Amino acid sequence: MTAASHWAWGAEPDPRELREVARLFADHTGLGDPAAWEPPVPFDRVRLREPRVPVPAGWSAFCTADPHDRAVRTYGQAYRDLIRAYRGDFRSAPDLVALPRDEDEITRVLEWAAAEGVAVIPRGGGTSVTGGVEARFDGPALCLDLSRMDRVLEVDPVSKAALVQAGARGPRLNAQLPPALQLRFFPQSYEFSTLGGWIATRAGGHFATLHTHIDDLVESVRALTPAGTWESRRLPGSGAGPSPDRWLLGSEGALGVITRAWIRVQDRPVHKVSVAVRFAEWAAGVAAVRDLAQSGLHPANCRLLDAREAALAGGGDGRHAVLIVGFESADHPVDDLMARALHVTAGHGGRAGQPRQAQGAAATEDQTWKSSFTRMPYLRNAYPGLGVIAETFETSITWDRFPALHEAITAETAVTCRLAFAYPDGSAPYYTVLMAADRGAELGQWDALKDRVSKLILHHGGTITHHHAVGRDHRPYYDLQRPGPFALALRAAKSALDPAGILNPGVLV
Amino acid sequence: MTAASHWAWGAEPDPRELREVARLFADHTGLGDPAAWEPPVPFDRVRLREPRVPVPAGWSAFCTADPHDRAVRTYGQAYRDLIRAYRGDFRSAPDLVALPRDEDEITRVLEWAAAEGVAVIPRGGGTSVTGGVEARFDGPALCLDLSRMDRVLEVDPVSKAALVQAGARGPRLNAQLPPALQLRFFPQSYEFSTLGGWIATRAGGHFATLHTHIDDLVESVRALTPAGTWESRRLPGSGAGPSPDRWLLGSEGALGVITRAWIRVQDRPVHKVSVAVRFAEWAAGVAAVRDLAQSGLHPANCRLLDAREAALAGGGDGRHAVLIVGFESADHPVDDLMARALHVTAGHGGRAGQPRQAQGAAATEDQTWKSSFTRMPYLRNAYPGLGVIAETFETSITWDRFPALHEAITAETAVTCRLAFAYPDGSAPYYTVLMAADRGAELGQWDALKDRVSKLILHHGGTITHHHAVGRDHRPYYDLQRPGPFALALRAAKSALDPAGILNPGVLV
Repeated sequence: MTAASHWAWGAEPDPRELREVARLFADHTGLGDPAAWEPPVPFDRVRLREPRVPVPAGWSAFCTADPHDRAVRTYGQAYRDLIRAYRGDFRSAPDLVALPRDEDEITRVLEWAAAEGVAVIPRGGGTSVTGGVEARFDGPALCLDLSRMDRVLEVDPVSKAALVQAGARGPRLNAQLPPALQLRFFPQSYEFSTLGGWIATRAGGHFATLHTHIDDLVESVRALTPAGTWESRRLPGSGAGPSPDRWLLGSEGALGVITRAWIRVQDRPVHKVSVAVRFAEWAAGVAAVRDLAQSGLHPANCRLLDAREAALAGGGDGRHAVLIVGFESADHPVDDLMARALHVTAGHGGRAGQPRQAQGAAATEDQTWKSSFTRMPYLRNAYPGLGVIAETFETSITWDRFPALHEAITAETAVTCRLAFAYPDGSAPYYTVLMAADRGAELGQWDALKDRVSKLILHHGGTITHHHAVGRDHRPYYDLQRPGPFALALRAAKSALDPAGILNPGVLV
Repeated sequence: MTAASHWAWGAEPDPRELREVARLFADHTGLGDPAAWEPPVPFDRVRLREPRVPVPAGWSAFCTADPHDRAVRTYGQAYRDLIRAYRGDFRSAPDLVALPRDEDEITRVLEWAAAEGVAVIPRGGGTSVTGGVEARFDGPALCLDLSRMDRVLEVDPVSKAALVQAGARGPRLNAQLPPALQLRFFPQSYEFSTLGGWIATRAGGHFATLHTHIDDLVESVRALTPAGTWESRRLPGSGAGPSPDRWLLGSEGALGVITRAWIRVQDRPVHKVSVAVRFAEWAAGVAAVRDLAQSGLHPANCRLLDAREAALAGGGDGRHAVLIVGFESADHPVDDLMARALHVTAGHGGRAGQPRQAQGAAATEDQTWKSSFTRMPYLRNAYPGLGVIAETFETSITWDRFPALHEAITAETAVTCRLAFAYPDGSAPYYTVLMAADRGAELGQWDALKDRVSKLILHHGGTITHHHAVGRDHRPYYDLQRPGPFALALRAAKSALDPAGILNPGVLV
């Protein structure tokens, strides 16, 4: 039912291109050994366990036990997923895959699963990097893939809002909106990830300030739970008790299956300007980001790359940290805002390049940094064969605590860092680790690193995740982070909604 | 323990001043009869029921059964509260009042209450207008008044955040911050309401756009529940599961006692500009607000008053709707933003007055509209004696649905309207009803009006409250509004946190 590779980001890569990418990467970073190239295990050598439950009678139009369909939905996109799939390890493959076309079919799945004791893992684009969609538990599992429910059902041009089915991927969602409107939400997974997945994981998107998470773009959510249909009102704002939407945002498939949502859309920007500002010192760049975040200028983009990350991204000289500041508006020119922002950055010694203007039609095109940003996951396809381990970890932390955390992390392991989101009271640092793999022992290497870094984050006062969600990989650290009584309340809420405990067992509760 | 009046907003009014206010109001509106003035029942004629539980041994330093202390904490500040207190009806007075000085004393109260089956009503400033703090149930009740816990405990000037005890009222909170910093949160109840109350009720504050609710200014919350201490991390942003803070925001004392919070504070603005724009037609003013809200200009103030409300507020000619647009910044001049805003309003036929600039020290002073805004509750003190019923109701609704709602409400009853908060996808209309009282039957009049209007709001797609909370007065309509499975989940969460059901029974669940 899909042309996706059983292991790679996107379609099956061409073997020669993959090795060429690997060679370039090794040349550039000194990591990995192109000569010791390890090819992926082809799908015809992959063996999946026989399904522990059969496809129920009458479900053939929306449910399958086909091995390839199950394999491509076994994992998310963490490195620890990639390496296992690359080696042909699909032990945790779901027994069945359902691809419902409507809510009735989802209801049938939920009722059957509760009766049969089968776990249900709702799946959007499957781009989780925290084990959020893997059946990492005992007992049979059904993958509930929402990808067929991908339509924009209604547009309200007056309020600028749209009703969208949860399975809509980024490009498909925007393509169905009227030409003047866009969601303006571009996570790195944009090509494959879905609205429902963004909501379930509180994904982070386009904007560096103000509306950083999908939370801020959601007007109402509809979800199917074993206890009935959960649908909130379309409301621009409310003070009627705790927000129901905020209970589903971040629920990671544990409370219900999100089927659609009203989202806030925006006019396409017609004024855009972007500048790269160089800083000799990382700390000066950080201070500039803090001042910008506290200035009330609200830049759309405010992305600080450390010297090494800037060089890897192709825009840096390897000695300077680079801050990309961007403003966009569908209403008014943004040059004055940029001028003020550059005054702020100059106060910290930042040296600004030439502003890149884009007005009118050109402003609606994706910019270079964004296309390289969304190409990055494809690069990862070369890591397992080359013998390179990659891990990204991200957090959010108040400004006063960030220097100590950053020092501890850079002392612990070789990382590159970028600040991708900027708040008045703190930032969301994003770290990338690339290291040589000990072939065959990669999972242990990765897990040990994850553990060390996660403990550092918690110790220094950060969150275990700013926008990658908890999933199964972050779960032990999440349990240490959240308030104890909140865990009790969440568990009780889950039991009320999902008494059989079938919904994505092991995440959150 | 307090100089508050047993019935009025603030201290006991001077009788002659009160009658003078009443006379002026009657002259201005044609409502009420100054000649048929009914004086308040003085406190020495009020009889309270004997407490059904005694002050526990050893609690005398923080607990009292004194009748005046109980009377002044019987009600909130809805008109239906005011009229009952005015007539000396204190049937629902709490049996005891606790004024804890620290968390240990709160814990003692909660443990005792659970053991003895006594309901606990957490109370901040007692300015609820929805019956949120009234013991409107059977059985004994203790009012847990947080007013002694009113200190700023810590300030983080780097992240611009402060740790504040829940009982701090608006003025006291800001007075304890360093001179350069402010919370910038001014609800109409600012003088008396508290941080803990704002959080528990998701109060609406200073800003017309962006950070409209206290939700957006909260970095972390600490609450005591019968199941233990709930404390979230200080985080500028997070994607780690559903937000624990968002479960407490709007919890109305039903899940725990909020004791302190880290809040985001801001530099005092040094650039402020404000303009009044007149519109011959209400609908044109509404369209201008919508365009402003969708423009990304983010005015700090964007308050549209209909012609009658503008006249009552002292700034209108009675024929034009008046839009107050204001910008403020601690960082940059805001004249360009104002110029663009006035371009937008001119596109809808708005005629702008002279911008009022305020720079430097002057900008930190409250402006006229705000001081008249906060004086308004004092005016209400004159209504019961004069024979005038007042009710305000507010909602939030998407732009596409607002015209039909507005038409229905104005057809139902004589109202004035203002739009106080503006979102890209909708607005928060606020209606005021003033009408002649049928003396002695005011509660029935008020309740009937509340019921008719609340049903209209729900029917047309609004929320039962944008920032007045649910309390007991909105409860029947709230139950119709919220998603069914959410109610199940909330009830389960409440049972896990408060198994004895002592926390503010009757609100939310």
